[in-house]
Order: sequence, then structure tokens, then C-alpha cells
Amino acid sequence: MPKKICISVIGSGSGDALSPQIANIANEVGREIAKRGAVLICGGLGGVMAEAAKGAKEKGGLTIGILPGEDPGSANPFIDITLPTGLGFARNILVAYSGDAIIAVSGKLGTLSEISYALLKNKPVIGIHTWNLEQLSDRMPTFEAQVYRDRVIRCENAKEAVDRAFAIIENKEKCQNGSN
Amino acid sequence: MPKKICISVIGSGSGDALSPQIANIANEVGREIAKRGAVLICGGLGGVMAEAAKGAKEKGGLTIGILPGEDPGSANPFIDITLPTGLGFARNILVAYSGDAIIAVSGKLGTLSEISYALLKNKPVIGIHTWNLEQLSDRMPTFEAQVYRDRVIRCENAKEAVDRAFAIIENKEKCQNGSN
Amino acid sequence: MPKKICISVIGSGSGDALSPQIANIANEVGREIAKRGAVLICGGLGGVMAEAAKGAKEKGGLTIGILPGEDPGSANPFIDITLPTGLGFARNILVAYSGDAIIAVSGKLGTLSEISYALLKNKPVIGIHTWNLEQLSDRMPTFEAQVYRDRVIRCENAKEAVDRAFAIIENKEKCQNGSN
Amino acid sequence: MPKKICISVIGSGSGDALSPQIANIANEVGREIAKRGAVLICGGLGGVMAEAAKGAKEKGGLTIGILPGEDPGSANPFIDITLPTGLGFARNILVAYSGDAIIAVSGKLGTLSEISYALLKNKPVIGIHTWNLEQLSDRMPTFEAQVYRDRVIRCENAKEAVDRAFAIIENKEKCQNGSN
Repeated sequence: MPKKICISVIGSGSGDALSPQIANIANEVGREIAKRGAVLICGGLGGVMAEAAKGAKEKGGLTIGILPGEDPGSANPFIDITLPTGLGFARNILVAYSGDAIIAVSGKLGTLSEISYALLKNKPVIGIHTWNLEQLSDRMPTFEAQVYRDRVIRCENAKEAVDRAFAIIENKEKCQNGSN
Repeated sequence: MPKKICISVIGSGSGDALSPQIANIANEVGREIAKRGAVLICGGLGGVMAEAAKGAKEKGGLTIGILPGEDPGSANPFIDITLPTGLGFARNILVAYSGDAIIAVSGKLGTLSEISYALLKNKPVIGIHTWNLEQLSDRMPTFEAQVYRDRVIRCENAKEAVDRAFAIIENKEKCQNGSN
Repeated sequence: MPKKICISVIGSGSGDALSPQIANIANEVGREIAKRGAVLICGGLGGVMAEAAKGAKEKGGLTIGILPGEDPGSANPFIDITLPTGLGFARNILVAYSGDAIIAVSGKLGTLSEISYALLKNKPVIGIHTWNLEQLSDRMPTFEAQVYRDRVIRCENAKEAVDRAFAIIENKEKCQNGSN
Repeated sequence: MPKKICISVIGSGSGDALSPQIANIANEVGREIAKRGAVLICGGLGGVMAEAAKGAKEKGGLTIGILPGEDPGSANPFIDITLPTGLGFARNILVAYSGDAIIAVSGKLGTLSEISYALLKNKPVIGIHTWNLEQLSDRMPTFEAQVYRDRVIRCENAKEAVDRAFAIIENKEKCQNGSN
């Protein structure tokens, strides 16, 4: 267990398409993480990543951006510590592995890869308006159907999501992660 | 475009839990790939990966295993060329990127990460009894709903899946991959 | 340019073989980095990494460990923020890329890979009792001989090494990094 | 041990700067590998990589290119199977790990990273006009001096290099790889 609690925030990087609703949620997730003294980790680019980092900085938090490219200058302006990996989308696994919990806000295929990796490592994943693995399992063969049910913990707002993340990290709530 | 056509076969590595039905499908996928002279790429371990590689070898095909570990000896016995990466589950992105098409047979969270990456690169993904992104989109916000519909091309058997993969690679069939 | 200055400290992880002299130098490098308010980045394990992180914590600095394994618990006890990559030795490139400057203290083959990558990205590399690329070039063909001469800036003690790193980062000293 | 013997050929990718002497050696290394029925693995780009792959194809060999980028089209025209990794220079570790032996022809910093990784995994490394770790050790502290001596096996021509590689792979010659 790392000394500092780290929360990874994942979601779409395409800022243009970001609805004001999703941007507000991401921003509030960042603020709530910083208010609790945790480190915010993200992919360092725009969209949900930039909104969450901006929120964290508004509350004096520390932000880390694990960048796909080799250039630290590609980070959004709210990142304190840049880790330019040069690994492209393979850096997604690092974002998933680095959080004590992962909060997904909306998101597309890159976010789905991060959710997959986080669940593979039995990390708690809290989702707001994002991929719904519970639904997926309904079409899987019967013997798989229960495995992924409730693996992404669904919340409706930012405060609830961060509360649930901390409840699990601090062992006040059980995370229903079983086998992969 | 690589000179040799490569097809990546993905799916669960847990051989014990593999039903005879899924094992047969994986084996036939491997045989159909080899019969068409293409190279079979997989993650090199057991389960669907071993069954598919076994099928390819039965028809004289060439097989490549992109292994998570550093030890070439961890490959299943049907792999001709081992690429021991030492990257753990991050090697999944290499399996997804290396195929001209990807065929998914059943599979769990690792497979979901590979499907995510393959679609992110606009690779054709053909699925048999696997994750259903079409279904997923029904619970996404309206503006996302059409994006992922039909992104995984669903087939019921091995021959149909390999036929569809080649039809797309040879430009006889259009792959409905749009934005990420 | 990241808002917070980051210095990567590299060197052998085999703590048992670490001489008291090398351990002292690594510890002082960590203290000097923290005294200047910079973040110390390392590979998170033992030996030079642990000694440098220990030094940084003695002066109230912030430490990040980019771990080869998937388990955050594998970090040494002086790491504030753990990034468990699961990439094995491939994580070395991340350590090299993440520093505004790299300070190498002794070290073996893993350290040599990190020096290679840091120089490939034209990062300033300061070395104390470590690999000597100047010497290497003497046996290279003539047209290569000047390229690597002086690429690792050689210092005799920790304070001088950190001073040189900051002089280069703050553009008070020119780094003689040319083509790769 | 993979069923097919794989030899990784490494060296500078900057084709323009490649002297005719080095190009000829790389080409002959490729031909000698193919004549012995082994698979040639390389980084898939130009310079030494392209010359060696060209040589292998002249003798009917099989060639694999582990590319830094995501585009299979970036491979040189002598590559049969492209593995587009998107990992940038981090793909160097895959080239080093994938060979049963590594043959280095000239080369710069990327080549040095590959030699480091190959030796770290105790792979036999044969060098022609390349980095000289024997020389390096002379300036290291006494207790390191013997460790790296003779770790890169030095040859003067292509045929000798491939002969030595096979002698070690087939256990006719002992590789002096000890601790890392």
C-alpha cells in the first residue's frame, strides 16, 4: 500500500465533445479527491483528464499525468508531475494499475481498456455515465454471467463516487471483485 | 500492409474452464487461418490460445506467441516463434496491433482489453461467444449509442469468422469502423 | 516542462553489494534533490534507489517509485507514490524519460539501459562512479568517436552532481547533447 | 526454447550514415542466418535492420520486424511479419528478449539499450564494430571490473559472428554470461 492514496481518473480525452455535464462531474471528482488529501493520477491530456486535474488544483491537490507521448509539454496545464512514457495507448495499463481506486467518467474505447485492466487487477472501479459491464454479461454464456455483474460500481454523481472509492480503500466497504 | 497476412486470435487463457464447445471453435479458427496461408498470432499461453495454435499447426500453419513473461519456455507447445515480452498484461496491446484482423473466441477481462485496443486502431474484430459492445451502448448516453453498435462483428462459427476476416482484409467487405 | 522539477536517480538495486561509499553518495543525492524542492523519481526498489529515496525523505522531499512489478507493496519504505507498472525492466525507459535530469550512481546493466535511453532523449545525465561512455567511444569507428564523448557528465560527489543537474535544467549551463 | 531458432540483429537505423562496409556486414549477417534456417528478428526500420532483412530474404529466410510505431507500413520492404508495437524505443527490449542470440552491427544509443537488455537476460551477444563493454569496465571500480569483461563477444566478420551465435545456441560453445 503506497503511503499516499492515489485515485486514477479516466475518461474521454476529446475535449471538444465533452458535454458541460460530464465536464462538471470530472471537475468535481478532482476537487473531491484533493479535498481528501489524495493524489490524482490521470492520462495527462485533455477532456475528462484536464477537467479532473483542474478541479484537483482548485483545491490544492497534487496531480500526476502519465502521458502517451515522449514530450512532457503535451500535458494539460493542471498537471504537477508529468511522466512522459512514449508507450502510446499502452500507457493506459499504468493509469489503471497506479490508482488505489479508479473513477471512470464517461469515456470511449481507451477508457474501456483501462476499466478492463483495473478489474483484471481487482482494483475498485467506480463509474459515472460510463461503460456498463453488468449489462454486457447478460449476453455472455450462462457460466460467465455472474462474474462481471456489479464489477463497475455505478454512481450518479462525483461526491458519491469519491465517497465510495474511499470507503473501499479504507475497508469500510467491501469491493465485490472476485476472479478475473 | 505486411507481406504475410496475420490474424490475431484472442480469448480466455484458463484452459481448465474452457468448455469443449469453445475449445473446438478455437481449434477450427486456427485450422481455417492456416488453410488460407495466414500467420496465427496469439498470446502464447493456454486455453483458446493453445487450441487455436494447435489447430493452425494441424494444417501446417505458422504460429507466433507474444508472451506476457520473460521466459520463452512458458509458451504452449504449438508456438513456432516465441516473443517473450516481460510486459505482463501490457503485451495485450501488441496482440491487438499485430493482426490484420482479430478473432475473439469467448474470453474475459484480458480479452476485453484486447478488443478495446483493436477497435481503437480501427482493426476489424470478429467475435464468437464473446463480449458484446453493441449491447453495451444501449446504456450509454444517447450521443454515444451509435458509435459502438456493430463494432464487434458477431459470428456463430469458426469458418464464418475467418471468412469475414479475410473478406474485410481483402477489401471485399467494408468494416464499419468509424471514430474511436 | 513540468511544473515541478523531477530528478531521476538510477543505480544498482542490489542492496547487499552496495558499498558504504556508494550508499552514502546515493543518500546525499536524495537529500540534495529534496533540499532544492525537486521531486525524486526512481525505480522504487532497493540499493541506490532506496538510499536516495531515504535521503529525500530525511529532507521532507516527495518521492515516486516506478516499479517493475504489479505489486505496490514491492516498493522500498521511502516511496510516497508508487507506480506499479508490471512492465519488468521495460519500466527503465519510464525512469529515464521522467526526469528533467538523470543522476546515475554506480549501477550495472539496468542502469546502462537507462543511461542509453536518457541520452537518446537528450536528457542531461550526470554520473558518479558509473558507466563511462567517453571511454567506450575510443574503440568505435572514427566517425562515431566524438558523438558520445562527454555525454555522461562525470562528477565526484553528490552535491556537485545535483548542482550540475540544476545548472543545466535552469539553463545556466549548456548540456552537450547533440545527435543520437 | 522456441521451436524455431530466432536471431535478433541490432544496429543503427540511420541508413544515410551507414558506411558501405557496415551495410555489407549487416547484409551478410542476414544471409548467414537464413542459410542456417533461423528466423531473423529486428526493429523493422532502415539501416542495419533493412540490410540484414534484405540479406535474409535473398536466401529465402523469414523476417520479423518489431516496429516502434503503430503503422505496419513503416517497416522496411524486406519484413515478412510486422509487429507494430506503438511502444517507441521501449520496443527495444522486445528485440533483445526475442532472439536466442543477438548480433550487433555498429549502432548507437538504441543499440546500447538493446545490448544492455540482452545481457541482463543472459542472452549471448555477438558484436561487430559496436559498443565495447570490455573497455568500459576498466574505468569502473575494481569490484565491477571482471563482471562485464568479454560479455559482448567480439567478431570481425559476419560469418564468424553467426557461427559463434549458433555454437552457443547449440551448446557447442559456452557463453560467459554470469551475474547481471
